[in-house]
Amino acid sequence: MTETTEPVTMDKIVSLCRRRGFVFPSSEIYGGLGSSYDYGHYGVLLKENVKNAWLQAMVQERDDIVALDSSIILHPQVWEASGHVGGFADPLVDCRTCKQRFRADHLADPEHEEIRCGKRPSKRPGETPDCDLTEARQFNLMFRTRVGALEETGTDVYLRPETAQGIFINFKNVAQIARRKPPFGIAQVGKSFRNEITPGNFIFRTLEFEVMEMEYFVPPDEAGEWYRYWIDHRLAWHVGLGVRESHLRVRPHEPDELSHYSTETSDIEYLFPIGWSELEGIANRGDFDLTQHTAASGTKLEWVDASSGERYTPHVIEPALGLNRSLLTLLIDAYDEEIVAERERTVLRLHPRVAPIKAAILPLIGKNDEMVAKSKALQQELRKDWLVEYDDGGAIGRRYRRQDEIGTPFAFTIDEQTLEDDTVTVRDRDSLAQERLPLSGVHDWLDDALERPWKSPKAD
Amino acid sequence: MTETTEPVTMDKIVSLCRRRGFVFPSSEIYGGLGSSYDYGHYGVLLKENVKNAWLQAMVQERDDIVALDSSIILHPQVWEASGHVGGFADPLVDCRTCKQRFRADHLADPEHEEIRCGKRPSKRPGETPDCDLTEARQFNLMFRTRVGALEETGTDVYLRPETAQGIFINFKNVAQIARRKPPFGIAQVGKSFRNEITPGNFIFRTLEFEVMEMEYFVPPDEAGEWYRYWIDHRLAWHVGLGVRESHLRVRPHEPDELSHYSTETSDIEYLFPIGWSELEGIANRGDFDLTQHTAASGTKLEWVDASSGERYTPHVIEPALGLNRSLLTLLIDAYDEEIVAERERTVLRLHPRVAPIKAAILPLIGKNDEMVAKSKALQQELRKDWLVEYDDGGAIGRRYRRQDEIGTPFAFTIDEQTLEDDTVTVRDRDSLAQERLPLSGVHDWLDDALERPWKSPKAD
Repeated sequence: MTETTEPVTMDKIVSLCRRRGFVFPSSEIYGGLGSSYDYGHYGVLLKENVKNAWLQAMVQERDDIVALDSSIILHPQVWEASGHVGGFADPLVDCRTCKQRFRADHLADPEHEEIRCGKRPSKRPGETPDCDLTEARQFNLMFRTRVGALEETGTDVYLRPETAQGIFINFKNVAQIARRKPPFGIAQVGKSFRNEITPGNFIFRTLEFEVMEMEYFVPPDEAGEWYRYWIDHRLAWHVGLGVRESHLRVRPHEPDELSHYSTETSDIEYLFPIGWSELEGIANRGDFDLTQHTAASGTKLEWVDASSGERYTPHVIEPALGLNRSLLTLLIDAYDEEIVAERERTVLRLHPRVAPIKAAILPLIGKNDEMVAKSKALQQELRKDWLVEYDDGGAIGRRYRRQDEIGTPFAFTIDEQTLEDDTVTVRDRDSLAQERLPLSGVHDWLDDALERPWKSPKAD
Repeated sequence: MTETTEPVTMDKIVSLCRRRGFVFPSSEIYGGLGSSYDYGHYGVLLKENVKNAWLQAMVQERDDIVALDSSIILHPQVWEASGHVGGFADPLVDCRTCKQRFRADHLADPEHEEIRCGKRPSKRPGETPDCDLTEARQFNLMFRTRVGALEETGTDVYLRPETAQGIFINFKNVAQIARRKPPFGIAQVGKSFRNEITPGNFIFRTLEFEVMEMEYFVPPDEAGEWYRYWIDHRLAWHVGLGVRESHLRVRPHEPDELSHYSTETSDIEYLFPIGWSELEGIANRGDFDLTQHTAASGTKLEWVDASSGERYTPHVIEPALGLNRSLLTLLIDAYDEEIVAERERTVLRLHPRVAPIKAAILPLIGKNDEMVAKSKALQQELRKDWLVEYDDGGAIGRRYRRQDEIGTPFAFTIDEQTLEDDTVTVRDRDSLAQERLPLSGVHDWLDDALERPWKSPKAD
């Protein structure tokens, strides 16, 4: 077995995602809609698994965090209080020649090579005499729409650009009902929308995306300690899903990078093909949000101890992660090509826990009725508990390769010997080792195998 | 035990949902946003369980259906081809006196008692001399927003009012990659948005909602057979989640009720407190959608048999269900009040499979360190696999009642005897029967209990 040393490129990921139906460009038959993607079968399953792993770690296995699912369209005052109406904007300049709009801060930035004046494709705006740039203006990134039928009485509202504000405005409801005192958290997964003019890099940045955010409310004097706790905890979560530690790092923000609400922020970065970039952010938001919403709404968002009368505005530590970006990270980190028996294979070395399909069930000879019957009976047994796939089409080698490409960790093959002694072969996606098991023991074997600790066999 | 015979009212459901944090009015601290709701901890968990039950039945346990997750914002031509830009509208009239807008078809309908002219709260519009109604005009129900920064080059787009169109436009991608031939289906769960002016009845109809839709593509001559198959199959799914058969019925649409795309439709109706109303619709959409998108996009959306050369446009059978409405149905169907030992209790008799919390773990004496330690060890063991809740606060009776109200099917109590012989009491939410089990056997007992067939003990 020889590992190839070709770097993983975004093009290879895009191509695999398309070929196997993880991710498609959205609205493709109508020419597409920029930076929008639809998730096919395996993409949906992978995404659900990542989301469930997050909910399990953040909610199911803890006493101190509860779940929430707030609306996408909130009262517009929410976004005034949060600072999004006033401040959530990019500085944009127009070119009067080519009529395109650019982010002012990207024009001079060599990382953004894609920016070109439309009339002079080989030159950047500002570098050609044709370019005639306006002054920069602030352009708000929130999508706006209108609730209500009447123009006169309807209300301008926004599609949320994050889920966090839906958590803050429910702080009082949740704190009362959940009978929690700080430190406690509220976790949410949901779609968010940003009308960015320079999204790109496949699903790294898209107009709509799913975020997984948790707001952790703590006594003010414990904020620093919990900030560090959550950086460590979230880093360990990514490693637990199989992401190689050598490709993860924590980068504290410089003071001039900090958002207006934050006193300290660190990014967990992953080494994407485009370089080290944010995978998750952990921010110490202080009491900014609860204080703003208290002032704007007139409802006191503070914690009151009913017995001692102690009261204070909790500080907030926020780990926030894009589900789609987590999925992209897992795909990149898992993607591998190698030469096996003089043939190249592409394999997604996904952690079995997040793999879309947990096992393939393959009759060696697809036209053998007995093999097919035994295979389908096994499929029937396993799919009560897991996503499994039955496949009887084509040569067995091709069927293995297909499962390798979608990251299926185990393949059970029903062959001549099965008909004699009711044993099956199990093939390991990563090591390619094969062993024989009793057919009746497959369910329990798989149950154990999916729970075993797993580490990426890809070279660091 | 005496069952009370009080009917379940929507007010009781709203009150329980609020009290226990299933559902809150959205943006409440800002005065709310009409017909928008946020889901608290138990609401999220219940919703996830219902969604997962649907995905398990539709995708995991079948060979012929794959999952999809398409974008909320699609290319605007999608909605022109589907007929939504032209036809997805309500007839509205304005009152020039009170400046409110009403649905013309609701003004004369006694079912819509909530409609009142704002200047004459006790009278309907048209019944008072002050009312000055305009002619009816068509008002489109899609929310509109704009992608892109420039007014001149930006594009008007819509928030999807259903997920089905995202499936149709991906038909070719999926059919090719999934190597499926009809009959096969594509299933999707996701948020949809409708700018309706008369939503209401709690979460029965809201501005944003999650739909679970499956488009099943069949040879044209098999459409009738599959239409009947899916009506039966979907009805059985609701019954399988514990909804009483006596409160479900199938109602075929009258010819004048049919949507423009449908040749036959049946509603699965539930007996809500507001009367028999749609829970799920099963529509025979014929070849309307694939034909429309073929014509509009120029991409042939048909099925071609590579070997025989046979080709046709499949017909489509669509079972479509609101996740929020399914959740409401389950809450209403499960809600019960009864007198036990001369005290009233409220209990949600939810199917254990959808119950937000599967088991409560209760040390009889919350201040007994040994009981607490054994309880927490049990919690630790169980929560790897399930959502469970540890509670040591207050009298045991109160703790049971609290779990009853959120529908927790089983409660394990750690008491004096546990400290002697390592057995625990398990209490059944519905029968109130208690039995003793070895502590070491609780995990397997619960595993079995959650898989047992379950039937609502509520009277039909």
